[in-house]
Amino acid sequence: MTRRIVVIGGLAAGPSAASKAVRTNPNAEVVLFEQGESISYGICEIPYYIGGEFPEDALTTYTPQTLKEKKGVRVKTLSRVEEIQPAKRTIQVRDLKSGSVRTENYDRLVIATGSKPKSLRVPGEDARNVFHVKTLSEGVALNKYLAVEKPRSAVIIGAGYIGMEMADALRSLNISVTMLHRHTLPMSTLERSTREMVRSELEEHGIRFIAHAKTEGLVVGKKLNVTHVVTNNGTYEADVVILALGVAPCSDLAAACGIRTGGSGGILTDQRQMTNIDNVFAAGDCCEVKSIIHNRNVYIPLATIASKCGWVAGENAAGGNASFRGAVRSIALRVFDLEVAQVGLSAQEARDAGFDVLTETITAWSRVAKMPKSSKVTITTIADKASHRLLGANLFGKDGVVHRANTLAVAVQHRIPIDDMQQWDLAYSPPFTPLWDPIVVAANATRKKL
Amino acid sequence: MTRRIVVIGGLAAGPSAASKAVRTNPNAEVVLFEQGESISYGICEIPYYIGGEFPEDALTTYTPQTLKEKKGVRVKTLSRVEEIQPAKRTIQVRDLKSGSVRTENYDRLVIATGSKPKSLRVPGEDARNVFHVKTLSEGVALNKYLAVEKPRSAVIIGAGYIGMEMADALRSLNISVTMLHRHTLPMSTLERSTREMVRSELEEHGIRFIAHAKTEGLVVGKKLNVTHVVTNNGTYEADVVILALGVAPCSDLAAACGIRTGGSGGILTDQRQMTNIDNVFAAGDCCEVKSIIHNRNVYIPLATIASKCGWVAGENAAGGNASFRGAVRSIALRVFDLEVAQVGLSAQEARDAGFDVLTETITAWSRVAKMPKSSKVTITTIADKASHRLLGANLFGKDGVVHRANTLAVAVQHRIPIDDMQQWDLAYSPPFTPLWDPIVVAANATRKKL
Repeated sequence: MTRRIVVIGGLAAGPSAASKAVRTNPNAEVVLFEQGESISYGICEIPYYIGGEFPEDALTTYTPQTLKEKKGVRVKTLSRVEEIQPAKRTIQVRDLKSGSVRTENYDRLVIATGSKPKSLRVPGEDARNVFHVKTLSEGVALNKYLAVEKPRSAVIIGAGYIGMEMADALRSLNISVTMLHRHTLPMSTLERSTREMVRSELEEHGIRFIAHAKTEGLVVGKKLNVTHVVTNNGTYEADVVILALGVAPCSDLAAACGIRTGGSGGILTDQRQMTNIDNVFAAGDCCEVKSIIHNRNVYIPLATIASKCGWVAGENAAGGNASFRGAVRSIALRVFDLEVAQVGLSAQEARDAGFDVLTETITAWSRVAKMPKSSKVTITTIADKASHRLLGANLFGKDGVVHRANTLAVAVQHRIPIDDMQQWDLAYSPPFTPLWDPIVVAANATRKKL
Repeated sequence: MTRRIVVIGGLAAGPSAASKAVRTNPNAEVVLFEQGESISYGICEIPYYIGGEFPEDALTTYTPQTLKEKKGVRVKTLSRVEEIQPAKRTIQVRDLKSGSVRTENYDRLVIATGSKPKSLRVPGEDARNVFHVKTLSEGVALNKYLAVEKPRSAVIIGAGYIGMEMADALRSLNISVTMLHRHTLPMSTLERSTREMVRSELEEHGIRFIAHAKTEGLVVGKKLNVTHVVTNNGTYEADVVILALGVAPCSDLAAACGIRTGGSGGILTDQRQMTNIDNVFAAGDCCEVKSIIHNRNVYIPLATIASKCGWVAGENAAGGNASFRGAVRSIALRVFDLEVAQVGLSAQEARDAGFDVLTETITAWSRVAKMPKSSKVTITTIADKASHRLLGANLFGKDGVVHRANTLAVAVQHRIPIDDMQQWDLAYSPPFTPLWDPIVVAANATRKKL
């Protein structure tokens, strides 16, 4: 029997789920509804597009046409799902061109409604020179604004990783950048020493970092542009304003039909990505996921996790039996010349989860010390004194940081004791790696203190 | 009671064992005998030193003086141990300056006699323009020869990884290089597709690769230099000859006193690095080690393994209780612009060990495809159909190969099923890594065929 599988949301988890559903059951009819004009584009690439490193035409992975042709998924854009009626297995879909609403039925539903940028909740936020960097159309609009209006100064509000990437992009366009942040240091889930290094890297590259600045208002000028950002810690001139305040799950649609959500507001699912409502699955930034470290639900809006969960949701919606075993949370970013990565829990998160935490920091050469391109890598480990497991790590440096973080992510994911990491048989080759890789140096140092 | 711990051999495992012995038991008297003039130098760096990338003064990690000062190890160079007398716990040591032999006693002995380069066994091998690259003094002599005699042509005999590194080094000095190899393709433990890529990389960089060439003789000219290398497949002119035929364990001293050796000639030890003779430990290139993949003894003369085994031997000799759990074999090298890595078993080795082997090859982008510096990475997986374990992998490409190999080495070492690798939660960051890392792409593709 042919199943009708309906997917709501066209960004990361949605196309992943829809494609996997077709592969799992080629007889299924798979339809994807997306409220925007575009689907399947790379939000994570937008800062690099703005900075001129990444071409606009490569931002989109699939168009509605190519998702149909290559993956067999029928896509309806500008189609906003406004209600889910689980008892009837129907949804109400508004056509945003005509304004009309129609009823669509489903056998299985996958909710992949994603996340929305957090708002300042002050007037002026919708001015034409205020941008989130959360959709393709906003990215393109920002790019055009920069090209046409040639702003000389920017204020970035928020110092998470999107803020970092945007600071880098705007500086590369010779725009003077002020970053406003509520805390002393950027990147709040990182350890203090990493955060200090990130702040100093920002400042070395000419970013004016204003700590303890809570935005209180936006001053709108004659051209209906924001001209100044007012905070409790000074007022800052801005030709353009970037809001990088983080994101929150889009779960209202799901919650309205009785789907359970967690503390973050994200949809709760089981490991098969099923919600508490029959035949309704969910995946991506609209959901919480299980942390593989402490088995609790957490909110980690990252494309990597969205894709994997989407895959699981799609396979199961099509009659398969897949499980998402849980997330580590692996984050990497470039802050000017610095590579920064985090895997797993922060020390504070680990303590909050009840672990007896030990942290240790080492610095070691990325390659054989005197080889060209060798530079220092700093690793902070977050370990559990009881089990000797690695719970998380921070890494920064200018060479070979991100891939080493990935190796540590595997240790976190598989609960490999630090004692075993000491004996990791890794490759040694002077142009690439030293005799004792920094991750083994970190394991040795941590082990000594455990 | 103070113990007298004697270590034979000053290169990798020896200093590692001696230093660890002092750390484990600061009251022990630790003495190291080395027959050469130098200790603790980086053999693996010599090709880069020859190529001008690495400074001569950085080749030595510890001198006898600094090993004494920093690690508390007393070092006697130019001291050749000629006999071990386990019943009396004594050794006979010849002072190579005076020629005299004296008796030294030990409570615990660590044999770290290393390996020796394989010989061609033809006349002319000791000519002044024929070099192994196996000791510091030979490396320095070769460097001087190149600087003074300015040879225009070199013949490298052997196409293992030292051969590759020397080819790169000599080409960078504008020397025309002919490589003679007995087989069709270089790097015999790699898979065919990797070997083909290595050969084509060599040839693209002007190396004349002569396959199926077994050296039959060296023609020595008037200046007592080798002028030609004669093979069953042509005669090749040479201003300088590099022998890169691999190495064999130096275990004669050990075998002569009744210490058991394995099929390779390497000393056999238990996981504590103890030989079959009481109070005698061994570590490094003179030993076989257990493969963690199939639990059989193998011969893997690599500095990484030597250091770890040395550490274990030193700790146990000093009264500790450490174990070396086994080796994966992780190899990485640069072949001109290509990064090449191997972890674990080759497909043939896996079949020989009785595994039901599946191999799969994928090619994927190292970073988000359209980002600067992104390039293709090719990964061949070697998997066990029965257990779904990864038994080994080959990787090549021009970006991010070696660290990815290390992550796969961890999977091999910890017997992580390929099914689990599909769900690895790795970092995604456009300047460094794509959404689906090549190692996850490889896991997915392999899983589909299992």
